[in-house]
Amino acid sequence: MKVGYFQTHPEFGEVQRNLEQAASRLGSVDCDLLVLPEFAFTGYQFVNQEEVLELSEPVPDGPTTQACLELARHHRMHVVAGLPEKAGEQCYNSAIVVGPSGFLGCYRKTHLFCEETLFFNPGDSGFRVWDIGPARIGVMICFDWYYPESARTLALQGAEIVCHPSNLVLPHCPDAMVTRSLENRVFSITANRIGQEARGGKPPLTFIGNSEVVSPQGHILSRASVDAPELTVVEIDVDQARNKSINPYNELLKDRRPGYYRS
Amino acid sequence: MKVGYFQTHPEFGEVQRNLEQAASRLGSVDCDLLVLPEFAFTGYQFVNQEEVLELSEPVPDGPTTQACLELARHHRMHVVAGLPEKAGEQCYNSAIVVGPSGFLGCYRKTHLFCEETLFFNPGDSGFRVWDIGPARIGVMICFDWYYPESARTLALQGAEIVCHPSNLVLPHCPDAMVTRSLENRVFSITANRIGQEARGGKPPLTFIGNSEVVSPQGHILSRASVDAPELTVVEIDVDQARNKSINPYNELLKDRRPGYYRS
Repeated sequence: MKVGYFQTHPEFGEVQRNLEQAASRLGSVDCDLLVLPEFAFTGYQFVNQEEVLELSEPVPDGPTTQACLELARHHRMHVVAGLPEKAGEQCYNSAIVVGPSGFLGCYRKTHLFCEETLFFNPGDSGFRVWDIGPARIGVMICFDWYYPESARTLALQGAEIVCHPSNLVLPHCPDAMVTRSLENRVFSITANRIGQEARGGKPPLTFIGNSEVVSPQGHILSRASVDAPELTVVEIDVDQARNKSINPYNELLKDRRPGYYRS
Repeated sequence: MKVGYFQTHPEFGEVQRNLEQAASRLGSVDCDLLVLPEFAFTGYQFVNQEEVLELSEPVPDGPTTQACLELARHHRMHVVAGLPEKAGEQCYNSAIVVGPSGFLGCYRKTHLFCEETLFFNPGDSGFRVWDIGPARIGVMICFDWYYPESARTLALQGAEIVCHPSNLVLPHCPDAMVTRSLENRVFSITANRIGQEARGGKPPLTFIGNSEVVSPQGHILSRASVDAPELTVVEIDVDQARNKSINPYNELLKDRRPGYYRS
């Protein structure tokens, strides 16, 4: 199975242009599952609720989901991409899952980060897993990584690949995703963006790139640079994520002892 | 507060000699909390149940706990150290917590690793936290690190320092403990051993050293070598572990959303 990340550099607010550039950059990509960043086509640093409402879109009827559906059909691949979602008057930091056969679903970010808490509702979808044929995939968004419960909940639901659209500004996540992959024996695909935003007099945000694919054994199969757009596809053997045996005496998930865990 | 690890190289089965060498090596150490490895004075690679029964000790009446109590009194410090515990005919992979005022308690390893499952009972103490005055400390043993629930359960019970006696043979733990400290905003002290054991025709085990103290911000305050005994003490500010604020909008533990987690 071929999986990849598309590390982008969107221009804030220019959704249509960002969508067109992404479509163009994808060229003749050969991939089964492609992950794009959080807020992949809008940019990140909203300065007020009006901006959020203006750039948020209904799912799946909005232009971003429709454009991703077109990419998925054209390239015969599944796509996971982040966008601000509008549901009535509520806004969510969401990620859509689409494939050649159509729209599969949407995840709403459970753990909002920093000023996102001002503009978005805490996600109410819960962590979800989709069977896309060659693999079962789960989705978490950016800061969700900080809470080990996120990837764990996906793994317990059978996720073999954790798709992780991100707009990372803190330095820890790329290395921590090695731990997330290892402790759940899953592949993880973190798609981050690059560039800087400093809007409305706010302190600048520098996005750290370093998108990556990590194996269930904690090997970094590919890691992108910190400052360039990058489209990378790697071949993985999903069976590695189905084998939860650590050694002849330890089975990762069976050896959990939830009676002793506090939740 | 001064905390440290004592990275040792015990000789298998020579408990009395290992205890004496440790006491001698401690010299005039100035420390408030010292963590020693898993099975700190027995060695690790048991080849049959008889050996385990022979080297396991009642707690707190056995010689290892008594020797550690003497160290704690003499140096006016708290000590966390691993030992094989015998309770009736049951054996546990345990760690004791002792201080100048006496025996505080014992933790029995929740997640047994590899052949430990042949010789030891799965721990039934649960994860425990002790208030030792300058800090609240929790204990987990070696492979417990692999399960994020271990450190999380300790943090949710108020642990500010995770004491982590270990006999690590896999390469991932030292870096993963950065994630464990970060995701719980706690200090962690991993005390590992060095050297190799190849007993009874079994494949050799090489212990990876790399004992370390990690801060709640994920900084490695000290990391030992892979192949030398080492006694290291560092000064920490425990208040850092009491401040769970990640930024003005995010409080680490309050922002958990257990309703969406699977346990």
